Amino acid sequence: MVSTKFIDQLSTKYKINFDNPKLLEEAFTHSSYANEHPEAGIRDYEKLEFLGDAVLELAISAYLYRNFSELNEGELTRMRSNIVDTEGFAEFAQKFGFPEQINLGHGEEKAGARARKTLLEDVFEAFNGALFLDQGMDAVKHFLSLTVFPLIDAGKFDASRDYKTDLQELLQQDGPVKIEYTVLQEEQTPSRFTVQLAVNDQVLSQGQGHNKKAAEQEAAKAALTKLN
Amino acid sequence: MVSTKFIDQLSTKYKINFDNPKLLEEAFTHSSYANEHPEAGIRDYEKLEFLGDAVLELAISAYLYRNFSELNEGELTRMRSNIVDTEGFAEFAQKFGFPEQINLGHGEEKAGARARKTLLEDVFEAFNGALFLDQGMDAVKHFLSLTVFPLIDAGKFDASRDYKTDLQELLQQDGPVKIEYTVLQEEQTPSRFTVQLAVNDQVLSQGQGHNKKAAEQEAAKAALTKLN
Repeated sequence: MVSTKFIDQLSTKYKINFDNPKLLEEAFTHSSYANEHPEAGIRDYEKLEFLGDAVLELAISAYLYRNFSELNEGELTRMRSNIVDTEGFAEFAQKFGFPEQINLGHGEEKAGARARKTLLEDVFEAFNGALFLDQGMDAVKHFLSLTVFPLIDAGKFDASRDYKTDLQELLQQDGPVKIEYTVLQEEQTPSRFTVQLAVNDQVLSQGQGHNKKAAEQEAAKAALTKLN
Repeated sequence: MVSTKFIDQLSTKYKINFDNPKLLEEAFTHSSYANEHPEAGIRDYEKLEFLGDAVLELAISAYLYRNFSELNEGELTRMRSNIVDTEGFAEFAQKFGFPEQINLGHGEEKAGARARKTLLEDVFEAFNGALFLDQGMDAVKHFLSLTVFPLIDAGKFDASRDYKTDLQELLQQDGPVKIEYTVLQEEQTPSRFTVQLAVNDQVLSQGQGHNKKAAEQEAAKAALTKLN
């Protein structure tokens, strides 16, 4: 269950107060826990994630529209997907102490789901969905001003940031190289792609993302980290 | 230019009043017109479309979340994409007299762009983006309560509605049939896919959409209309 300490921290450090604590609990409940504990009567976070995904999309789009007026529509779109399709959300979830609060079933706990980036992304979205329902869009914007917006301003999601191109340039400095991205796994609802990257038939890295493109970018990013 | 008659109609019939008429003008300006008339100093609608896309996504997600509590996350997601990925927006644009207001360049006018569904979809999104900026989310919800929401309630975008599956069932009543979807064209920014549908190597229909899946659904829908 979400701890009192965590709730206090949200309030004192970040001025986030939930009127309905059940929504907060729901945002932190994985389906494996809800299935194992029907007596708890908590729904899993998936519906809040559905809503939170759209909440984040609009909050971030409006922020980009207002603060990056020099960018054209294509650049704005690319920057938006750099933000919402990467592992950034998982990092925020970690920074804010979300992992410890997640209600997980035994099997998933054993499998290490608590540290799984895709799960942390989901919880970050669900949390924003809950915050939107409970406190409205202004509260979400306030939360994002503590998390996502400063990194946007610092250029972390720069529209020109394209890991696949960077990797290609790095690898092909001394002549042509065969770079291959293969989809290993494709999950639906929520959609999750796992892509493998091979260079000259040697597997180099993997990446995960909400769509194929995002997963490829993550694989390229991981390869760059390995090579640098 | 957007006519006074249209602006009056928005106000009297739908209680929609823009404080900043330049935003309304921008929502109806295609890039071909902006390019041909730099002296007019109007930006094309693409940035408003970027914003409007996210505005509609959230307004519709929140409506579904609140009014279809019996659906699970997968069904909600499918229903949402049935709404935002289909030609529905173009129909509303037509119904509300949007086509006549669009500022188009000569070439595009000759090519029949004024009746092009994908362009009408874009303008519908841009209009909602402009309305959001000028009047806020409540005004958007009011507009959607006159357009999209009643059709959602009437079951038009039912989660069970899947044209590809319907087509497959219809065609394979008397045994196996080869159904093939081929991407003919893929445009970026804004993304636009054109898919061709062939049955037993005979081309039957085409479909367009914001992504491959949506374009395939449109192709299947067109084929069903032809066959029924």
